[in-house]
Amino acid sequence: MDLILLSPDELALRLSKVREQMAAQGIESALITSNANLYYLTGRVFSGFIYLPPMGAEPVYFVKRPVHMHGQRMAEIRKPEQMLEELAKLAAPAPHAFGLELNHLPYSMAQRLCAALEWADAPLNISPALDLARAVKTDHELTLQRISGAKHERVYRKIPQLFQPGMSDIELQIEIERVSRLEGCLGQFRVAGEYMEIYMGNVLAGENADAPSPYDFAMGGAGLDPSIPVGANGTLLKPGMAVMIDMNGDFTGYMTDMTRTFAVGTLPDEAMHAHQTSIDICRELARMGKPGVEARALYDCAAEMAAAQGLADYFMGHRQHAGFVGHGVGIEINELPVIAPRSKYVLQEHNVIALEPKFVIPNVGAVGIENTYIVTDGDSGMECITRAPQEIISFDR
Amino acid sequence: MDLILLSPDELALRLSKVREQMAAQGIESALITSNANLYYLTGRVFSGFIYLPPMGAEPVYFVKRPVHMHGQRMAEIRKPEQMLEELAKLAAPAPHAFGLELNHLPYSMAQRLCAALEWADAPLNISPALDLARAVKTDHELTLQRISGAKHERVYRKIPQLFQPGMSDIELQIEIERVSRLEGCLGQFRVAGEYMEIYMGNVLAGENADAPSPYDFAMGGAGLDPSIPVGANGTLLKPGMAVMIDMNGDFTGYMTDMTRTFAVGTLPDEAMHAHQTSIDICRELARMGKPGVEARALYDCAAEMAAAQGLADYFMGHRQHAGFVGHGVGIEINELPVIAPRSKYVLQEHNVIALEPKFVIPNVGAVGIENTYIVTDGDSGMECITRAPQEIISFDR
Repeated sequence: MDLILLSPDELALRLSKVREQMAAQGIESALITSNANLYYLTGRVFSGFIYLPPMGAEPVYFVKRPVHMHGQRMAEIRKPEQMLEELAKLAAPAPHAFGLELNHLPYSMAQRLCAALEWADAPLNISPALDLARAVKTDHELTLQRISGAKHERVYRKIPQLFQPGMSDIELQIEIERVSRLEGCLGQFRVAGEYMEIYMGNVLAGENADAPSPYDFAMGGAGLDPSIPVGANGTLLKPGMAVMIDMNGDFTGYMTDMTRTFAVGTLPDEAMHAHQTSIDICRELARMGKPGVEARALYDCAAEMAAAQGLADYFMGHRQHAGFVGHGVGIEINELPVIAPRSKYVLQEHNVIALEPKFVIPNVGAVGIENTYIVTDGDSGMECITRAPQEIISFDR
Repeated sequence: MDLILLSPDELALRLSKVREQMAAQGIESALITSNANLYYLTGRVFSGFIYLPPMGAEPVYFVKRPVHMHGQRMAEIRKPEQMLEELAKLAAPAPHAFGLELNHLPYSMAQRLCAALEWADAPLNISPALDLARAVKTDHELTLQRISGAKHERVYRKIPQLFQPGMSDIELQIEIERVSRLEGCLGQFRVAGEYMEIYMGNVLAGENADAPSPYDFAMGGAGLDPSIPVGANGTLLKPGMAVMIDMNGDFTGYMTDMTRTFAVGTLPDEAMHAHQTSIDICRELARMGKPGVEARALYDCAAEMAAAQGLADYFMGHRQHAGFVGHGVGIEINELPVIAPRSKYVLQEHNVIALEPKFVIPNVGAVGIENTYIVTDGDSGMECITRAPQEIISFDR
């Protein structure tokens, strides 16, 4: 099996994006260690490391598992301590201004890798450089993400047929999981951050939407067990309840994020109004979102539109509020840029952003939508790649 | 909501087990940071930290999310830099011989937490102490794990009804996922180690069992996509194929691990013989496994039994071999002890261990079983808590 699954051009493009961000931060060499970034720079997840030498020299690939991989400048190793000898064989330059993924790599492994490369100084942090490189997608990545969006949409269009009277939130979720998996969803929902955990997504019905969660998602939910306290909690779906469905779309290694709201019977006017406000906010932000626009301007606009409609208390939660209205999405579900009040990020062409202006209405539940958008330089604003119907669909038949 | 969901006795017991292991390693104070260990020491996952002060002083609980939690010696914080002020308010002793979860905590966060507590020395590594404490389960933990095992068994007993002629491995897996979720499976499969990722488990059919994977699981599989290269790959289930089903059981926050092998039609004698050898190995290891027995003795016995049956080449893989035959299981699927040739662990009462002597037979697939056992001090050996039928069941009807 070939280690590198990317085309030579695609590989060169991604490496140059990473190198450019490294240079901007004064990092000249690095070891790439996380599954997400190994995948970014080869097109596959493997157990091992990629060494980016100083002076722009070609990468060296260290592979522990799987066995029997092939590639140029590739060395099979059993442990990190073999790296230095392999670098000597390949005449690769030793580390200089050396970085590691310090926002991700465990402390003890970072120390071990430095020792293995005889790097005595404190390592530099290459995580921000990788995050910034990945925040601007290549055309190939956009293609994969559009495919995910199209399959994700097919799943959402099937949701109304899955509801049965008497169902609980989790029973409905399980049927959506099944349909999504049959459509090709890979299941895994990669999230950055060691404290983040989630299954395939969440269905939040009625008051459970107001249960605070420890995780840094837009919405909460008590979950089924305190060991995984998020999402559906067994709430029976009853007339007058809003049912927010935020199930992940990972069909290609690149994710799309989409949320739609359904209703059992009809919802009170306040909830319908809040939902329409969410649609309006998405439309306005999609119009605004262009290269050169500050991410925080999008947040401010969303918060102002919510407040103008008298919905500030319910915006992004009620008992517990999330501090953002959107986030980058790609190999992981929570990439740059974050659309938040203090973000300093300026939008660039081919950022991919999920916008999720949501509201929690007491006694009704969560309403609103989420879409994934590509930032383009065209006049029509951002391109929505999650195109299921946006209005609240009633489960009544 | 109360932060601590454990009874006072259970909490005291777990703290004393952790303190004992810390003392053995010369660690006097620590900050607990991982979801798995926060759950171990409170009974819930939350966003925050537990400070274990020196001199055996009572823990202090720092909670970022969810909001509105209640508890003694609990402080709500927004960021780690607020910890020191809160410790002063509670008159809690400052760190001394201070440890962090260095096998898990990212390097940059470890540095930030040390700075926040004004700890200037290198932090000690508390990960091994926590791993060792958690390797010996309390009675309450065993109860939760037995409940998981019983529900896990119910799922496996339904598997023969889920097969339909013409199905692929992933289609069968999706139906098992659904039945498991309806039985109460929480879905999430917590694994230790930053490189480990898995969905709900794996179904391996035919030759796909021999596809090497980057992950450190007993078996491989190509997976559906190079972004998650493990498990089912869309293989059509055909006569003569072994179908190994290794789907997780997490119904309580405590996991059980169980594998069974099914067959489409009949399998060649060699595969049937290897499967029976797996059953025999499990029976023998369960008899051997007692407090005081070395973990590696179990591995050696398994490898010898496999070799004596002429199956050494197929034991724990064929193209790629796993270096263990079992592992601890609890809050995470890969806990101590590891049942491996160089393990120095000596079994203790109430270790919980998954044993998985498996074989990959070329042209047929993977055969063998996996069970989860509790180490007891009784004469009858280890207690099996995953009691589905062990023989190969044919899908033919």
